[in-house]
Amino acid sequence: ISKSAVEKLKRTKQKLLTLDEYTDGILSCNRTILGQAITLVESSLAEHNEMAQQIIEKCLPHSGESIRIGITGIPGVGKSTFIEALGKYLTGSGHKLAVLAIDPSSQRSKGSILGDKTRMEELSVDPDAFIRPSPAAGSLGGVARKTRETIILCEAAGFDVIFIETVGVGQSETVVHSMVDFFLLLMLAGAGDELQGIKRGIMEMADTIVINKADGDNLNKALLAKKEYENALHLFPPNESGWYPKVTTCSSISKDGIEEIWEIVEEFKEKMTGNGFFGKRRQEQKQLSMQSSIEDQLMSDFYSADVIKKLMPDLIQMLQNNQISSYAAAQRVVEAYFMGKFKD
Amino acid sequence: ISKSAVEKLKRTKQKLLTLDEYTDGILSCNRTILGQAITLVESSLAEHNEMAQQIIEKCLPHSGESIRIGITGIPGVGKSTFIEALGKYLTGSGHKLAVLAIDPSSQRSKGSILGDKTRMEELSVDPDAFIRPSPAAGSLGGVARKTRETIILCEAAGFDVIFIETVGVGQSETVVHSMVDFFLLLMLAGAGDELQGIKRGIMEMADTIVINKADGDNLNKALLAKKEYENALHLFPPNESGWYPKVTTCSSISKDGIEEIWEIVEEFKEKMTGNGFFGKRRQEQKQLSMQSSIEDQLMSDFYSADVIKKLMPDLIQMLQNNQISSYAAAQRVVEAYFMGKFKD
Repeated sequence: ISKSAVEKLKRTKQKLLTLDEYTDGILSCNRTILGQAITLVESSLAEHNEMAQQIIEKCLPHSGESIRIGITGIPGVGKSTFIEALGKYLTGSGHKLAVLAIDPSSQRSKGSILGDKTRMEELSVDPDAFIRPSPAAGSLGGVARKTRETIILCEAAGFDVIFIETVGVGQSETVVHSMVDFFLLLMLAGAGDELQGIKRGIMEMADTIVINKADGDNLNKALLAKKEYENALHLFPPNESGWYPKVTTCSSISKDGIEEIWEIVEEFKEKMTGNGFFGKRRQEQKQLSMQSSIEDQLMSDFYSADVIKKLMPDLIQMLQNNQISSYAAAQRVVEAYFMGKFKD
Repeated sequence: ISKSAVEKLKRTKQKLLTLDEYTDGILSCNRTILGQAITLVESSLAEHNEMAQQIIEKCLPHSGESIRIGITGIPGVGKSTFIEALGKYLTGSGHKLAVLAIDPSSQRSKGSILGDKTRMEELSVDPDAFIRPSPAAGSLGGVARKTRETIILCEAAGFDVIFIETVGVGQSETVVHSMVDFFLLLMLAGAGDELQGIKRGIMEMADTIVINKADGDNLNKALLAKKEYENALHLFPPNESGWYPKVTTCSSISKDGIEEIWEIVEEFKEKMTGNGFFGKRRQEQKQLSMQSSIEDQLMSDFYSADVIKKLMPDLIQMLQNNQISSYAAAQRVVEAYFMGKFKD
């Protein structure tokens, strides 16, 4: 990092530390410094990113020793209370837990439903838990990258369980699925199919479906729902790891079923480590993440090129009017793009 | 097309016609000429492709007036017999049917399971049916493009029902789904979950699940399976078109249920045309197809660049050893790629 960049950073709101200060702080689990480093990762300033990349590089050799769990479910399913209940159980059994969030909708002034510390009252003051709200929304690819890098920092800080929370209503689930070891879907009993609002395909990503709020008058309905989902999942083949998704019930209030969920996670980890799938999947995820990052960068360069911006609207019109095939249209713009690149 | 290219083409196995001869032949539904034009589409020779693109451009204004139906199911589900039964019903009711196939595995010497005319004895001699085997395998993207362009030619020739057949075991289903209006999944009753071999996610794409071989001793099992799948599908929300996937049974031998399947397709088309989704989806498919073709071309240029081939193995090693983050690795190769482009 150049001297002038450091000067510039020092002038920004967040006081800049040295690379060693960041790294040492993270490795000794200084939560303030960890938080500041994540802010650099999330920053849109090039100078911040330069420092962030150096921190990440230093942290990488200390990362990876955790189980990464994706947690999703529609708003109202009781995600925060569930995370609080499972989280407290984990910190109570000697684990260190980081809770991250992906919420691409948070910018749209709907108010961030996720990462709201006040909704996890106990966990937010637990010295063995670290809660980080969703990064300010950008492209899904950008948010994904920031979350992947935040995972690395949290693992280097010694957190051995990472929750990545998302709202079960959109594309972000696929992204979360691509960066976790275990995917947990929270559902409600008897909410009616439409009300569940879970997008097609999300259920099939679940390693475990948890019927939440299985307490009081709701208990019987929850047990019935469990049976139904078990029957439904039974119709699908196991995923390539050989794991059959499980369905279970829990109550975040009475804490019934919380321990059982963790037993499922541990059984999963044991089986997947045993058959080599755990490590294989992590390696694949890293490579896919690199590939999609390459793709993002190439496509963004393409679509932001002046020649493309100029050509595209007419071509799309021709495409819709059946005047050109999609392949011929693609070929034409790609040729124009490369011609433009050479001319520069 | 240049004169020398024409000369070159004339020397190749297939006799080259003029553009007008191809176009007129297709528009008057000359099946020999249609077949020859599809061969040009499928050819890997640049000169053939040049002519093919011109033919497609001429045919485009005459395309689109059909219903495109994707049909999938594992080998052994009775796909050919089913297509023969439904196909004969259609040509018997005044329709003109083209049967295309996507089978990326056909090259791998396993023998093409698809497009085998001898397995559709009646349909292959039916003057109102046109059966075209799967194009020789290449990349899935390449096969997809060839099939999309073949659809255009068949529609221009007046075929008003297009079947696109695929094996229900891999990625090709997603590709087929992206080019059809209606997606039909063939299943067997009581084959056991694992035996069904349908990949996760495919069932969720289905607009209708047909339990095949619902005859004889199998009938009761088929009716039971119907009920089970209905319950399972009921747990999923409708897709964005508002269509609830249906489950039905049929026998390709007794022909029971064949007419009902076509009634479902017609109900689907009526509803989707009514709510505007039919046209909207077609327009989206065209645009997505252009985008993925752009992506294919950009990525293929990237990965075939010498500088990338040289850099990549080391970077992947560093990635696996936790020496570099996937984002930093991506940034490094993209920079090297653009540097290489400028140098040329």
